[in-house]
Amino acid sequence: MIRFLTAGESHGPGLTGIIEGLPAGLELSAELLSQDMARRKMGYGRGGRMAIETDAVRFVAGVRKGRTLGGPVTVWIENRDFRNWEGIMGAEPGVPGTESGPQKEVFVPRPGHADLVGGVKFGHRDLRNVLERASARETATRVALGAIARAYLSLFGVNVLSVVRSIGTVSWSGPPESLWADPEALRRQTLLSEVFCPDSESSARMVEEIRAAKKAGDTLGGIFEVRALGLPLGLGSYVQWDQRLDGRLAQAFLSIQAIKGVEFGLGFEAARLPGSKVHDPILPGGERGPERPSNGSGGLEGGVTNGLPLIVRAAMKPIATLYTPLPSVDVRTGAVSPATVERSDICAVPAASVVGEAMVCLVLAQAFSEKVGGDSVEEVLAHFRESQRLARERTRWGGGM
Amino acid sequence: MIRFLTAGESHGPGLTGIIEGLPAGLELSAELLSQDMARRKMGYGRGGRMAIETDAVRFVAGVRKGRTLGGPVTVWIENRDFRNWEGIMGAEPGVPGTESGPQKEVFVPRPGHADLVGGVKFGHRDLRNVLERASARETATRVALGAIARAYLSLFGVNVLSVVRSIGTVSWSGPPESLWADPEALRRQTLLSEVFCPDSESSARMVEEIRAAKKAGDTLGGIFEVRALGLPLGLGSYVQWDQRLDGRLAQAFLSIQAIKGVEFGLGFEAARLPGSKVHDPILPGGERGPERPSNGSGGLEGGVTNGLPLIVRAAMKPIATLYTPLPSVDVRTGAVSPATVERSDICAVPAASVVGEAMVCLVLAQAFSEKVGGDSVEEVLAHFRESQRLARERTRWGGGM
Amino acid sequence: MIRFLTAGESHGPGLTGIIEGLPAGLELSAELLSQDMARRKMGYGRGGRMAIETDAVRFVAGVRKGRTLGGPVTVWIENRDFRNWEGIMGAEPGVPGTESGPQKEVFVPRPGHADLVGGVKFGHRDLRNVLERASARETATRVALGAIARAYLSLFGVNVLSVVRSIGTVSWSGPPESLWADPEALRRQTLLSEVFCPDSESSARMVEEIRAAKKAGDTLGGIFEVRALGLPLGLGSYVQWDQRLDGRLAQAFLSIQAIKGVEFGLGFEAARLPGSKVHDPILPGGERGPERPSNGSGGLEGGVTNGLPLIVRAAMKPIATLYTPLPSVDVRTGAVSPATVERSDICAVPAASVVGEAMVCLVLAQAFSEKVGGDSVEEVLAHFRESQRLARERTRWGGGM
Amino acid sequence: MIRFLTAGESHGPGLTGIIEGLPAGLELSAELLSQDMARRKMGYGRGGRMAIETDAVRFVAGVRKGRTLGGPVTVWIENRDFRNWEGIMGAEPGVPGTESGPQKEVFVPRPGHADLVGGVKFGHRDLRNVLERASARETATRVALGAIARAYLSLFGVNVLSVVRSIGTVSWSGPPESLWADPEALRRQTLLSEVFCPDSESSARMVEEIRAAKKAGDTLGGIFEVRALGLPLGLGSYVQWDQRLDGRLAQAFLSIQAIKGVEFGLGFEAARLPGSKVHDPILPGGERGPERPSNGSGGLEGGVTNGLPLIVRAAMKPIATLYTPLPSVDVRTGAVSPATVERSDICAVPAASVVGEAMVCLVLAQAFSEKVGGDSVEEVLAHFRESQRLARERTRWGGGM
Repeated sequence: MIRFLTAGESHGPGLTGIIEGLPAGLELSAELLSQDMARRKMGYGRGGRMAIETDAVRFVAGVRKGRTLGGPVTVWIENRDFRNWEGIMGAEPGVPGTESGPQKEVFVPRPGHADLVGGVKFGHRDLRNVLERASARETATRVALGAIARAYLSLFGVNVLSVVRSIGTVSWSGPPESLWADPEALRRQTLLSEVFCPDSESSARMVEEIRAAKKAGDTLGGIFEVRALGLPLGLGSYVQWDQRLDGRLAQAFLSIQAIKGVEFGLGFEAARLPGSKVHDPILPGGERGPERPSNGSGGLEGGVTNGLPLIVRAAMKPIATLYTPLPSVDVRTGAVSPATVERSDICAVPAASVVGEAMVCLVLAQAFSEKVGGDSVEEVLAHFRESQRLARERTRWGGGM
Repeated sequence: MIRFLTAGESHGPGLTGIIEGLPAGLELSAELLSQDMARRKMGYGRGGRMAIETDAVRFVAGVRKGRTLGGPVTVWIENRDFRNWEGIMGAEPGVPGTESGPQKEVFVPRPGHADLVGGVKFGHRDLRNVLERASARETATRVALGAIARAYLSLFGVNVLSVVRSIGTVSWSGPPESLWADPEALRRQTLLSEVFCPDSESSARMVEEIRAAKKAGDTLGGIFEVRALGLPLGLGSYVQWDQRLDGRLAQAFLSIQAIKGVEFGLGFEAARLPGSKVHDPILPGGERGPERPSNGSGGLEGGVTNGLPLIVRAAMKPIATLYTPLPSVDVRTGAVSPATVERSDICAVPAASVVGEAMVCLVLAQAFSEKVGGDSVEEVLAHFRESQRLARERTRWGGGM
Repeated sequence: MIRFLTAGESHGPGLTGIIEGLPAGLELSAELLSQDMARRKMGYGRGGRMAIETDAVRFVAGVRKGRTLGGPVTVWIENRDFRNWEGIMGAEPGVPGTESGPQKEVFVPRPGHADLVGGVKFGHRDLRNVLERASARETATRVALGAIARAYLSLFGVNVLSVVRSIGTVSWSGPPESLWADPEALRRQTLLSEVFCPDSESSARMVEEIRAAKKAGDTLGGIFEVRALGLPLGLGSYVQWDQRLDGRLAQAFLSIQAIKGVEFGLGFEAARLPGSKVHDPILPGGERGPERPSNGSGGLEGGVTNGLPLIVRAAMKPIATLYTPLPSVDVRTGAVSPATVERSDICAVPAASVVGEAMVCLVLAQAFSEKVGGDSVEEVLAHFRESQRLARERTRWGGGM
Repeated sequence: MIRFLTAGESHGPGLTGIIEGLPAGLELSAELLSQDMARRKMGYGRGGRMAIETDAVRFVAGVRKGRTLGGPVTVWIENRDFRNWEGIMGAEPGVPGTESGPQKEVFVPRPGHADLVGGVKFGHRDLRNVLERASARETATRVALGAIARAYLSLFGVNVLSVVRSIGTVSWSGPPESLWADPEALRRQTLLSEVFCPDSESSARMVEEIRAAKKAGDTLGGIFEVRALGLPLGLGSYVQWDQRLDGRLAQAFLSIQAIKGVEFGLGFEAARLPGSKVHDPILPGGERGPERPSNGSGGLEGGVTNGLPLIVRAAMKPIATLYTPLPSVDVRTGAVSPATVERSDICAVPAASVVGEAMVCLVLAQAFSEKVGGDSVEEVLAHFRESQRLARERTRWGGGM
C-alpha cells in the first residue's frame, strides 16, 4: 500500500514529504527528481520568487546509495530564504528577535484563496497562518513525491506526460496522436514552449494573453491535459465506489490548488454526443490483445484501465491574488479594504500541469502496487510478468480464453 | 468517522449496504428513504425493468423503533425477481437445476462497459460475472445510504438538491437563484418534469431528444447539477491533499457509473475568464458573517466550504448498451460480433442526478462528522451549536475577531 | 486490500458481514463455513440459546455457483427467532403491536459489560440498545468471514488451529509439537473435548471446574492458543508502526469481546528469561531455507513472519453476566439493584478460541493480499510462486544470495 | 482524524515524523518535548550511544511561535553523528568517498531481530539495510510525536504515566493507588530510579540483575505498566471490531520493538479468577457519576473507557543483540558464524516504558479527536465541555437519565 503525506509552510524552514510502500531496490537520486522540480517552476507569467529559487530535494530517509530500502522515504526541500523569515515563521515561542522587525501579518483575506475560510475554521486572526500552508508552494513536495512514483512506474514502462491546452481564451486542440505516441519528442517540444504548449503559434498567443492580463493587473487560468501511456489493462476496480480509478484520479486533480474541474476522455463533450459516437468499438486485434479504433473513454471503462492511454484534462481558475485587488474586508476592523497582495504569479497553468502529472503518477503507483504487490523491485517485476502473461492468455480469444 | 460499503449483484438475491459512524438517536425509516429510492427509478427513457420494480429498503441492522442505535446500519434491498434468476445467479455450487434452463451468459463485451476489462482483470469468461456488479443497479444501495446521510445532514439544516441541465444537445441554463433558494418548490417542480428539468420548455425538448435517440437505437448522456444549501463555513481542509473537500466530492462523482467529468462553481468556464471575473469579493455582511455578491467558487475556497451554496456539475456519457450495437468480439471465438444487448435504458441522466445527490450527502456527512464529532444526536447538536457560535464570533469583524 | 465490516444486533433480524478484496475464482460454499460456525457454538458451559440455534450462513453477494466474483461478499446469518422479537427489536417506528407485550428493557447495567459505558456514550436509557450490539453474538459474523479468509489462506497451504490451554485454575501445557504438526489429528482430538482441550484428563478437570462455577452462580474465563502453520517468511513489515504483524494481530485479539491479554511465542515468560534463552538461533538448514531449533519468537521477528509457526495466546476474562449477580444501579432511579441477568454462558473460552482463529485468518489474509496482490486465484497463485522462488533463492546461502 | 507516520534510519541523516489532525492553537515547543526525549535515553544498562547523544527535536512544519497552525506537524531529529556515516549511509549514488573506508556491512543476522526476515523480504544482502530501520532508534520519533499528543491530552486533564514492574526475575507489585493518584509525585519518584521503578529496594535489585546479565554477556527484558488518569467515559466503541480501544492500544503496544505481550487490568490473571472476583461492581456515586470500588477491567468495558484509570502492562523480551552472540549463519557463505554484535543495550525496559506512554498518548489522542472533533483548541474545548455536561446528565440517575 503506497501512501504519502506532505507538510510544511511556504516560508517555513522547508517542506517535508513522506512516501511509503515502495519496493526496495528502486533507483532514486536527487538528479532523477530535478527535471520535474525544475519544470514546476517554469512558465511565462510566474512571479519573482520562482526565478531566484531552485528547489533541491534531499532524501533524508529511506534511500541509501541511490536505492530505496523498502521503508518510508522522506524528501526534504529546504527553504534557503528561511533566515530572512525566522523571526516571522519560527516554530519556537519567544525566540529573541521574534517580535522585532516587520511581521508581515495578513489581515485582509483574498477572494478565491483559503484565507477567509482558514481564518474562521482554525481561529487564526493573522491570515498568514492560513496562506502559508494553503499556498501552492506545497505542491513542490507533491512533485518530488510524484517523481519518485514516476520512477516506480517506469518499472512497468509507463510514461506520464502533459501539455497545456488553453490559457484564458486561447485554446488549442492538442498534439496529434503521433506526437503523443513519442514521449521524448513531446517532452522536448513542450519544454521549448514558455507555456508548455508544443504548438508554437498557440504558444505565442498564450504568452501574449498573459502579457495583456499582467498589464491589466489581472490573472489567468487554463486547461491542461495529462496522459499516461503504456498502462496495462486492469488497474482500478468497479467492485466498490472508492476503488474506481477515475474517482481516485479525480480526487487527486481536484486536490490541486485552483483546479475547478476534471474530465476523462471525451469528458463533458460525451454528454452531448450519442452513444454511437462515444463508445469505442472492440476489434479482435492480434497478439497484443483487443484493438480499439478510438479512445473516447480516455483509457478507463468501469473505473478500470483498458490498456488505452489514460487521458485527463483539468481546468484551472485564474490565480487568486490580483495586482489590481478585489474588494475585501480587514478582519481587525470590519472595514472594506482591497485584498492583500502577496507576490504572486499571473498564470501558473504550466506549473499546474507538472503537478497534475505528479498526482497521476502517485495514484497510478498506488493502483499498480495493489495489483502486483511485492516488496522488492525483483519481486514486483516477477509478479508483473505473471500478470501480463495471464492478461495475454485471457485476450488470446478463440485460443480459449 | 462515517464509512460505508456496498455489495450485491444486479440479479442476485439483493443488495446490501453498511454505513457506520452515525450518531445514536437519528430518526430513520423505510419511508424516509422511499422518495429518493423512487426518484432513482424515474425519468423518461428508462428500460422496462425500472417500471415493474420498486426498491423497498429494509433496515436489518442498526435501527430500532425508528432510531439509530449508534452502530453500523445495514440496508437490504431484496431482488424480488430472484426466484427467476436463482438457477443462474445462485451462490451455491451444484444446486439442483443450476445447469438446466438458459444460463444467460454474456460472451460479447459491450464497448463502454466494464465487460472487457472485468473479464481480463478477474479472469471471467462469462462476462455476466462482471456486469452483474459493474452495472448501475448498485447505485440503488448508494441512494439508500445517501438518504440516511441526508437525514444526518438535516440535523444541521442542510438541503441537497439537483436538476438536469442538459440531455444530449439540449441544454438549459439552470433555475434562477430564487428557485434554488426555495428547496421545496424546486423539488416539486423538478419532479413534475419527466427528465428532472424544472423548465417545461427545455424538458419537452429533452424528452423529444431521447425519443429520437431511441428510434435510432442510440443512447444519450447529459449534465446535471447538484447543490447543497445551508452549509456552514469550515468543512474540509486545505492542510493535506486528501482532506480537500472538492477532491473528495470529485472522487464521489467520478465513482458513479458513466460519469466522465465534474466541475465546481464556474468550473471549466473559470479557465477562460480573467481572475477579476472569477473570484468572489468579500463584503462585510452583518450578523451572519461576510457577504459574497457572487459564487463563482461554487462554495469552496481552498477545499473548504465558505458558507455559500456548494455547486457541482457532472457530465454523464450516453448509456453504453446500444440497441443498434457497436462492433465487438465474441471472447469464445475471437470472431467479430455485435455487442451484447442487455435490457437497458436510453438515457439515465435523471437517475444519475439522484445518485449524485446521494454521493454529495455521503461526503458531506463525513465532513460534518469530522468537524463536530459526537456519538448521539444530542451531543452532535450541542457540538454544532458551539462550532456555530465560534464561527459567528470570528466573523463579527471589528468587534474583535 | 482486504477489508471487512460486520453489522447486526443479537436479537435483530440477522447479522451481516461484508468482506472485500478477495480474488475472483475462490471456492466458497455455505458448507465450507459450516464447521467453523458449528464449532463457535460448542463447548461445555454454554447457555441455552446455543443449543437450539444453528447459524446457517447465506451468501447474498459476491459468490456465484460456488466461486467468488471478485467483488464484495456479503454473508447473512438470519435470526430464526426474530418473529418473537419483532415487536421489541423491529426497525420501523410505530409498527402495530410494537408497544404491546413485554419490551425486555434493561435498566440495570451489568459490571464488565458495555452496558454502562454504552448507555452514557450513546445516550441510551434502555440498555438493550447497547447489549444487542456489544454482545458476543456479533462474533458469528466474524467466524463466517474468518472461514472465508481461511479458504483464501488455504491457497497458500496455511493452516490455522487452536486449543484451549486453561479454564479458570485448570491449566495445561499444550499439545506436543508432533500433534501441532498434524493439523487434522489435532482438530479431531480437539473436537472430541467438550472444552476444546485435546488432553482428556485436563479436559475432564476443566469441565469439572465449569460445573462448580455454575453451581456457585459464577463464571469462568481461560486461555487459548492459536497457531498458524505453513506461513512463508515475509508477511508484515517493520517499516512503519502500523505495518507490524504482531500489532495487527494483537488488535484483532483484543477486539474480541472479553479478551484482556495477548502474547506471542514466549510472551510474558520472555520478560523473565535472559536473552540467551529467548532468541532462536539461526542454522544453515537446507533447501527450505534457514533452520531454527526453537520458536520463542512465536513466528514473528521485527513484526514479520519468519517461516516458523505463528503462536498466539489470549486471556479471556470470565463471562460478565453472573447468575448470582454483582451489585449495580437501576439507571431509572439510581437505586442499588442486582445486575440484570440475560440468559448467558458460564464459560465461553472454547467459542472464543474459534473466534480467535477467525481473526487470525482475517489478519493473515490481509497480509498475504498486500504481499502478493492479484485479482484472480490464478494470478494470486502465479504471484505467490514467484515470491516463493525468490525467497528460496535468497536463502540459498553460499550459493550467492 | 489524527494520523502519523515516522521515517528514518538509525545512522541516516535524521528521523522524521509527521502528525496531522491536531487543532490549531495548541502550545508546543521543543522544551515541552525534551523531558520525554530525555527519559527515553535513560535507564541503567543502556549502551554507549545513549550517553553521548541528546535528541533535540526541531519543528520544521506546522508550528509557528509556539502554537500549532492546524496543519501537519513535522518533527526532525537530526543525527549529529551523520558526518561519520555519510559515506556509508548517504542517499546519493556515487558520492565521492562512498566506497572508501569501512562500509560496516552486516552479513550475519542476529536471532530475534528483523535482520533475517528483512533481508529475505526486501532482498537485502547487506543486512544493515534492514537493521537501520528496524532498530528501536525509530522510537525516538514516536516519543516526540507522543509528547505532542500528550500536549493535546492535557487539554482534557489527562495524565499518562508509567513504571517498570519487573526486569528479568525481579518483579515488583507496583505503586500503591495513592501514589498513582499523584502524578507529579510518581513521576518524580520514578525518575529517581535508574530503572524507572519507584521502589528503591526493587530498583536496586533490578540494577543488580542487569549488572549480572552484562557480566554474562546476556541481556534482559521485563514488564512495564502504563496508566492514563483523568479519562472521560466513552472513548472508543464496541460497534465495530476495529473501533474497540483495547484493540487499538494492543496494536500500539505490540508495534513497539521487542514487545511480546500486553494485558489490560487484571489481564492474564482474569483468566484464572471467577467472574465474581473480576468484574467491578457499579455503585451509585454522586455528582461525578457511578462509583466503581475496583478496577479489574483496567478502565475499559466493551472496548470503551469507563472513567476509571486505563491500566496496561506490556512484556518486553530481552535485547536481541548479545555480547556473547548466539549461533547464526553468514549469508554470503552459508557458514555458521556467531551473530553480528552491534553496539547495544543490556536492558531497555525503562526506555520502552517511555515509548509505551507515547503510544498510549497517540491512541488516546485519536480517540478524543473522533469523539470531540474541532479544528481549534477553543472549539475542541467547547465541544468537550458539552460532552462532559451530557455525560454528567446521563449519569445523574434517578434525576431522570
